[in-house]
Amino acid sequence: MMIERIVSEGLSHNSYLIGDGSAAAVIDPRRDIGIYCEIAEKNGLTITHIFETHRNEDYCVGSIDLSRRTGAWIFHGAHLPFAYGNPAYDGDEFAIGSLRIGVKETPGHTDESISLVVIDSAVSSEPLCVFTGDALFAGDVGRTDFFKDRLEEMAGKLYDSIVTKILPLGDGVIVYPAHGAGSVCGGDISDHPFTTVGYERKTNPLLQNGRDEFVGRKIAEHHYIPPYFRMMEHYNQNGAPSLSERRCMDALSPEQVNGVISAGALAIDLRGPAGFAGGHIPGSLNIWKNGLSAFLGYFAAYDRPILFIDDFNENLPSAEVQALRLGYDSVAGYLHGGIGSWYRAGGAVGRCGTCSVTDVDPGDPEQFILDVRDINNRRSMGAIPGSHHVYTGHIEMHLAEIPADRPVLVYCDAGFKGSLAASVLLRHGYSDVTNLLGGMAAWKQAGLPVEDGAA
Amino acid sequence: MMIERIVSEGLSHNSYLIGDGSAAAVIDPRRDIGIYCEIAEKNGLTITHIFETHRNEDYCVGSIDLSRRTGAWIFHGAHLPFAYGNPAYDGDEFAIGSLRIGVKETPGHTDESISLVVIDSAVSSEPLCVFTGDALFAGDVGRTDFFKDRLEEMAGKLYDSIVTKILPLGDGVIVYPAHGAGSVCGGDISDHPFTTVGYERKTNPLLQNGRDEFVGRKIAEHHYIPPYFRMMEHYNQNGAPSLSERRCMDALSPEQVNGVISAGALAIDLRGPAGFAGGHIPGSLNIWKNGLSAFLGYFAAYDRPILFIDDFNENLPSAEVQALRLGYDSVAGYLHGGIGSWYRAGGAVGRCGTCSVTDVDPGDPEQFILDVRDINNRRSMGAIPGSHHVYTGHIEMHLAEIPADRPVLVYCDAGFKGSLAASVLLRHGYSDVTNLLGGMAAWKQAGLPVEDGAA
Amino acid sequence: MMIERIVSEGLSHNSYLIGDGSAAAVIDPRRDIGIYCEIAEKNGLTITHIFETHRNEDYCVGSIDLSRRTGAWIFHGAHLPFAYGNPAYDGDEFAIGSLRIGVKETPGHTDESISLVVIDSAVSSEPLCVFTGDALFAGDVGRTDFFKDRLEEMAGKLYDSIVTKILPLGDGVIVYPAHGAGSVCGGDISDHPFTTVGYERKTNPLLQNGRDEFVGRKIAEHHYIPPYFRMMEHYNQNGAPSLSERRCMDALSPEQVNGVISAGALAIDLRGPAGFAGGHIPGSLNIWKNGLSAFLGYFAAYDRPILFIDDFNENLPSAEVQALRLGYDSVAGYLHGGIGSWYRAGGAVGRCGTCSVTDVDPGDPEQFILDVRDINNRRSMGAIPGSHHVYTGHIEMHLAEIPADRPVLVYCDAGFKGSLAASVLLRHGYSDVTNLLGGMAAWKQAGLPVEDGAA
Amino acid sequence: MMIERIVSEGLSHNSYLIGDGSAAAVIDPRRDIGIYCEIAEKNGLTITHIFETHRNEDYCVGSIDLSRRTGAWIFHGAHLPFAYGNPAYDGDEFAIGSLRIGVKETPGHTDESISLVVIDSAVSSEPLCVFTGDALFAGDVGRTDFFKDRLEEMAGKLYDSIVTKILPLGDGVIVYPAHGAGSVCGGDISDHPFTTVGYERKTNPLLQNGRDEFVGRKIAEHHYIPPYFRMMEHYNQNGAPSLSERRCMDALSPEQVNGVISAGALAIDLRGPAGFAGGHIPGSLNIWKNGLSAFLGYFAAYDRPILFIDDFNENLPSAEVQALRLGYDSVAGYLHGGIGSWYRAGGAVGRCGTCSVTDVDPGDPEQFILDVRDINNRRSMGAIPGSHHVYTGHIEMHLAEIPADRPVLVYCDAGFKGSLAASVLLRHGYSDVTNLLGGMAAWKQAGLPVEDGAA
Repeated sequence: MMIERIVSEGLSHNSYLIGDGSAAAVIDPRRDIGIYCEIAEKNGLTITHIFETHRNEDYCVGSIDLSRRTGAWIFHGAHLPFAYGNPAYDGDEFAIGSLRIGVKETPGHTDESISLVVIDSAVSSEPLCVFTGDALFAGDVGRTDFFKDRLEEMAGKLYDSIVTKILPLGDGVIVYPAHGAGSVCGGDISDHPFTTVGYERKTNPLLQNGRDEFVGRKIAEHHYIPPYFRMMEHYNQNGAPSLSERRCMDALSPEQVNGVISAGALAIDLRGPAGFAGGHIPGSLNIWKNGLSAFLGYFAAYDRPILFIDDFNENLPSAEVQALRLGYDSVAGYLHGGIGSWYRAGGAVGRCGTCSVTDVDPGDPEQFILDVRDINNRRSMGAIPGSHHVYTGHIEMHLAEIPADRPVLVYCDAGFKGSLAASVLLRHGYSDVTNLLGGMAAWKQAGLPVEDGAA
Repeated sequence: MMIERIVSEGLSHNSYLIGDGSAAAVIDPRRDIGIYCEIAEKNGLTITHIFETHRNEDYCVGSIDLSRRTGAWIFHGAHLPFAYGNPAYDGDEFAIGSLRIGVKETPGHTDESISLVVIDSAVSSEPLCVFTGDALFAGDVGRTDFFKDRLEEMAGKLYDSIVTKILPLGDGVIVYPAHGAGSVCGGDISDHPFTTVGYERKTNPLLQNGRDEFVGRKIAEHHYIPPYFRMMEHYNQNGAPSLSERRCMDALSPEQVNGVISAGALAIDLRGPAGFAGGHIPGSLNIWKNGLSAFLGYFAAYDRPILFIDDFNENLPSAEVQALRLGYDSVAGYLHGGIGSWYRAGGAVGRCGTCSVTDVDPGDPEQFILDVRDINNRRSMGAIPGSHHVYTGHIEMHLAEIPADRPVLVYCDAGFKGSLAASVLLRHGYSDVTNLLGGMAAWKQAGLPVEDGAA
Repeated sequence: MMIERIVSEGLSHNSYLIGDGSAAAVIDPRRDIGIYCEIAEKNGLTITHIFETHRNEDYCVGSIDLSRRTGAWIFHGAHLPFAYGNPAYDGDEFAIGSLRIGVKETPGHTDESISLVVIDSAVSSEPLCVFTGDALFAGDVGRTDFFKDRLEEMAGKLYDSIVTKILPLGDGVIVYPAHGAGSVCGGDISDHPFTTVGYERKTNPLLQNGRDEFVGRKIAEHHYIPPYFRMMEHYNQNGAPSLSERRCMDALSPEQVNGVISAGALAIDLRGPAGFAGGHIPGSLNIWKNGLSAFLGYFAAYDRPILFIDDFNENLPSAEVQALRLGYDSVAGYLHGGIGSWYRAGGAVGRCGTCSVTDVDPGDPEQFILDVRDINNRRSMGAIPGSHHVYTGHIEMHLAEIPADRPVLVYCDAGFKGSLAASVLLRHGYSDVTNLLGGMAAWKQAGLPVEDGAA
Repeated sequence: MMIERIVSEGLSHNSYLIGDGSAAAVIDPRRDIGIYCEIAEKNGLTITHIFETHRNEDYCVGSIDLSRRTGAWIFHGAHLPFAYGNPAYDGDEFAIGSLRIGVKETPGHTDESISLVVIDSAVSSEPLCVFTGDALFAGDVGRTDFFKDRLEEMAGKLYDSIVTKILPLGDGVIVYPAHGAGSVCGGDISDHPFTTVGYERKTNPLLQNGRDEFVGRKIAEHHYIPPYFRMMEHYNQNGAPSLSERRCMDALSPEQVNGVISAGALAIDLRGPAGFAGGHIPGSLNIWKNGLSAFLGYFAAYDRPILFIDDFNENLPSAEVQALRLGYDSVAGYLHGGIGSWYRAGGAVGRCGTCSVTDVDPGDPEQFILDVRDINNRRSMGAIPGSHHVYTGHIEMHLAEIPADRPVLVYCDAGFKGSLAASVLLRHGYSDVTNLLGGMAAWKQAGLPVEDGAA
């Protein structure tokens, strides 16, 4: 048998290909499916089954394209009316060579969520591993906040799913979850690449104190729902456009970039905060290359073209694929020659202030200090005294709360989201914006005073 | 500026991507076009133009797919009614950055053949290089045998094209031809990766003695026309099916292979002659992996599935792509686990005799010695005394000339085509077939007697 | 944290790089150490520690070279006098970022064997995973047959190590062993890429019935000890020559190959059985490319050059590295152009008989049927009636038992070892040798009569 | 035959591997020689000859290491006493398969410079191509300024070499020079990847007007000589240290970086100008990743460690190899986690001003405008009115000319060298330094007034 985990960086999404004999199954395929075909071919396997652990909301699933290329059957949980594929019920079992893949309904994250338990019948009837989707992660469990009027119900269902369906499999069963550290689908997933039922039973913070506390903690959790989730839900329930006819990105001259922006395109600057601060195309948003999966879906519209601006144009393929995985098929192109060609063209250059923690004058009454972190981080780590909070992804909805005629000092955890928030402000006409390099991490490292963030 | 040659092994086909500024042109794109998009993106270029030097007959051109992915304009010679793209006339000029790409009509190989002359206007108005398509190769010129009733006319046209359009560009112009050594589109192309107008003027055997001798030699030349050429001509004039929806190959068990063969699939054994001889699936043809481009088109039908048999299944992607470039979209799959899994399944195994030159008894009156080389090689190098000639690709049409009740000793140049011919005979029920390892090369190396092959 | 398994194919050897923060440890590095440096650099890690779970006997360890390139400290078990590195005792603990790596002495395979238990102190004080070296594999345990006079003692020690040191870690602990399926260091390692303490506790055949049965089974086990193990033990205890000054392989013409063989070099034919049978260089041994790690060490001498013969010369780098991992630094080169160039040179070509199970006449009294399988397979699966047994690796020591004047039919499990054995016989002058393609697997598949192999 | 050009980016250095039959020669190998071994092995070739067209001064040649790994003979021009290898004289000829490689002494760049003329005797006795080393480039010729007291003599020799040795080869001969566009070994090499004798004869600006004008132009040329050239000359004449025992780079925490810098290490910031401006480690020099080959040799000392600072640590392998090619074996390591980890550590952050051309107030009397371009560019393109000139590489020697108490506006061609110069000033205590993004290119694009740069 073989099993390979395919990680989609940025999304921190895990898909898996598991094979035995000449057959293979793919669990939760991403939209760009070439890699599954390559792995299958390299290992002499035919992909015969595709399983979706649930209707994903944070990325576009590639099941239909993959099924078309391989002839594989698609299965997902029965308790949602999908427009394609086949329902799988608790107790269903599928064969991949000598492997038996059994379905366990594990609702809680969503109603139709399933986990897939693998037994290698050539060795034993003991379960070997389980694909838990968004039910159980390393060090965390799935979100239960998608149905606002059923928070307690869903949290309770998830607890029951984990405790009655997954933990009884036995401590020695390997857990393959759908997400790793950094995913927007969990609050605090650990960076352990692999875990087991036993390790989670003993160490997962959510599983240490019984059902009531579990439900209570889950209800009290705060998560953000990026606006693009709605499109993903639509695509994943009904089928997304095929990627096979996708256009290549165009290399655009500074003049062409100007034209495309004037016509409504959104320019995304992929560089780090310092590069953006040192000189950027006016109006561009600074979503650094590793932040695309998390933040593009807050700011990009599905009916307007996207444009990438990079330093040396080395991150374009990765940026494009991150956009495609969120369903953004409208990437118009990129600035030929990178940001340097913009400079050389002699046009306008925007700049943004930066400072280190040693530069901040916390007593400056003029200054408006804006905290753009996840509210959970503000609550747990504390805040810079006197700072106001608006989450990065929500800046555009809260501009009225941020004075345009005062110096604004933006900070986040480390400086990246801060630069994105600063770029949003600059785009909306704010003129005196400074991003705190190093953010709260540097602030605490420097031993500066911290205010209770829950206030 | 940049220029990159993309070689399609097997076909010995050269395509080119030439870029300057932010634009690029592709000359004679192959069907699997991903590589052009990758090179363009890596170099920050948008492909804006696609040129076809002529309606190719030996492979399936990818212009339409490439145009769809890039928005590029397609151009080909004006003197053939293509169902897509735009006509380009002698004297037309296109701009790629500071490069000027000028069209020269250079008929002879076909009526609509063009060459493309590149001037870098940033440096000089002198021509820098020329894409000659199938007009001029390194050490050879294009075939002029496609119009059986116009042999002299076409040969003369080609001479005139070369002498009045290409040679006058000047000795220092670099020549980028559409084919390299080993192509079926030339008789004796040299293995020089690059050449120049001057080097060809001085050393190309065809260009040393004037128009009459050129025409005479061309008329006397003998070339083979594989039957798949007709489909390529149709595809390239009217547009081939898109590759974007292609199915993955299936991994088939020995039982499934049996079933697929019974249902009419053609099994192609990709191994070398010795491997085929030592044990193969009965009925399979031995087209070694590097011979697919040259010979698949003689034996495979467009309406029957193809099946690949390999030693360790390491050549499958390359084999599949070679089939696709010839328009064979019906690759059903391959034997899972390679030939070893066939052996282990315990079914029938075919074998073929092999011998070295020291094993041959030329005086054996029973033995039928069959020469399957290109007739040109037989004529120029001589033959084993008493041998009969049928070209590898034509065996099936000449079975009546080959006695099934006598031992048949097959030989070719080195042993590969001989094994293919032997496999054809075995497939047709011949029982005593031996392939001469090393072929004529070994025979001559051993100093054995040689008969005039022209007789 | 990150963990990456590096598999050395052929050896089925697993080494691991585990990192956290900016530091990393490597467990059981192989001789060609470049990959560890690359992974470390790609992940922004400095390799600070190297652990050897024991003095390996089946491959050459790369600790000293790796330490020289990184400055890392080397540690191995204390109960053997190594000429380099530092002793690690039960209970010792090392820090890699927030990981704590604890030493457990787990003798049995060897006296100085250790296991390494990893705790992620950032998450919990529960153990996360354990590197078990050659103590515990997936579905098997380490060999205990290296000290012929202490068989019972070592088997008992191994049992105690597993039961008192590893199993108590808890079912949920992930097990990273030093070998996977196919290794000569285990008899029947499963193909599970990952396992856990719990899965092994419940399903490992050796761990189901208590100490006495464990010891009894281990004493009764039969393993082979390839002669090159002695050199590995010497190298790994005292330090092997550095690879950094290694010579490139030479491309040799047929004439040069002749010369090198005459001067004593051993030619290894890397092809499959059918290719070898169809035509080979007389005197060459047919160790197919994936069999090099297991069989080169039976036939190659450390003071004689090795020469590789391949079909299309695509396996040379892999073959060379397999030789280097066994300490064979004397690879002289390979036949330029592959076996085809030998054929074309017109020299002598050896052949070997092949047959399928349907071709065998078991009643032929002339025929000597030779079973060259692992004796364990003969015992457990049965044998072809009337067959004699000599293990592949021992053929040269038992030639007297094999009649040179009768037809010899060689068989093994599938046909590869059989071809190697046949090549050994041919090299020693046997003239009528046939290899059974598909071996015992085909025999049983065909439902032919089977004899008790234990007799 | 095959020929492959290996480009060392940054240096714009071309080396070549040319092979035929089973043998190959390498021309001007770089220090990291692995690529030649790989290409040779992939093509089934043994490297038998290494040619150095001259004692290179801009990079460290790898001939000795390559000879040690392959057994190849080293040859260089006879008119310099090398401590290794063998002299090659005008008229000497070497065989590589059917290729004949003839030596032409072509002094001018240096006394011992040779060109290598290749004839393919299997085709013709006409020359096919020529490796011209630093004698003739595409669009330029080699420098003749290394012997300050022999300027006219060397320029004359180069003219004679080109006109009497290279041009007579004939227009159709392909020219393979040792450098491409961007090399410090030429003033204005074109970006044509390939050229011919004929194209150069007709279009090379130096070859249009006879010997006197050639010599006059060459004497009038101005080139810079980076200080590291002296070490390269020493290494290349006497043999450089072997790379085989090189240490891996260490991943250093911010604290360790602080320590290493305090102990004298030079921190090199590999980012673009805007990133450096937005926030950097105080004291670091901003040599952007593609500028390392050209500028590291001005600022790094051979006896002090080098430290790399990157944005996302994606350019470290390339940066290290560029340093090694200049003989800097003392790369201590890099900042773990990239510049972001410096910010998060909360330490001091330096910043640099940036502006676009529309921000400049040319009339500001306080402002000191510093032009750091190559003096040739200043002369040919003109300058910003009132600007002072000091070449980037010479800033440290001319600090006295640059006022530390006035705002300094630095500019170059496009903004990269300007940022390096600005970082040098900041390192030396200048506090008000601004780099003009886009440099002179933007200035001219914007139509701003230009002053005669020759004044």
